[in-house]
Amino acid sequence: MKEIEEGSELRLDFTKLQKVAKTGRPVLPVVVQDADTREVLVVAYSNQEALEHSLKTGIATFWSTSRNELWIKGATSGDTLQIVDIRVNCEQNSLLYLVRMLGGGVCHTKDAQGHTRKTCYYRSLQNGKLNFVEGRSPI
Amino acid sequence: MKEIEEGSELRLDFTKLQKVAKTGRPVLPVVVQDADTREVLVVAYSNQEALEHSLKTGIATFWSTSRNELWIKGATSGDTLQIVDIRVNCEQNSLLYLVRMLGGGVCHTKDAQGHTRKTCYYRSLQNGKLNFVEGRSPI
Repeated sequence: MKEIEEGSELRLDFTKLQKVAKTGRPVLPVVVQDADTREVLVVAYSNQEALEHSLKTGIATFWSTSRNELWIKGATSGDTLQIVDIRVNCEQNSLLYLVRMLGGGVCHTKDAQGHTRKTCYYRSLQNGKLNFVEGRSPI
Repeated sequence: MKEIEEGSELRLDFTKLQKVAKTGRPVLPVVVQDADTREVLVVAYSNQEALEHSLKTGIATFWSTSRNELWIKGATSGDTLQIVDIRVNCEQNSLLYLVRMLGGGVCHTKDAQGHTRKTCYYRSLQNGKLNFVEGRSPI
């Protein structure tokens, strides 16, 4: 996992969605975007229960496809996300959560200084290798 | 489809990823974001072939999970997306394409004026109903 998360080798896991489907739980992809900076922070998954919990509490809630349970983001880490708006796509088969970060970031990994990474998209694919772009402007 | 795309009723299709998995093709979700305005435009799916085509041509290419074929975005509509950067998430199981629009938009739907919608996320969930937010600031 360390190499996958901290390495510069591209080792994409194209089987993710097949694993998600095998849980037998119908879920949708949710793009999570910082409402202020507009950085894309993470892609997670949601179902009816997670959506209702997000709407009721105002805290971004997902369905954990690895633990197969409701995932109230930040419940243990403190990296809570406040819901600012929820957008639905044309075909109603994906969601966009616009959020405000109440904690230090979104990613479960940490940067070289030991800080929670704000976004999960901290590497850019350049000439077949992954370059770290954290701390730099996302564009 | 018309009601799903143009209506104000929330009718989420939570079965999307199960359908995607049933194609038997391993694909990843790809968030497509405007590199300049940072609007999230669409979530699509990609595999090795689509990623390689995107890198080789500089044009955002996906795997169509409905037609089960390579989908060079804009090849028929003209709504091509130029790749500015490709980001990879921590777990290497999703992608973020930062793009520049060379056509009129991204969505296959059209607004009241008959123009291609720039983003697929043109509706906001408010009190259980979908409100159209197109033409307004995304936040």
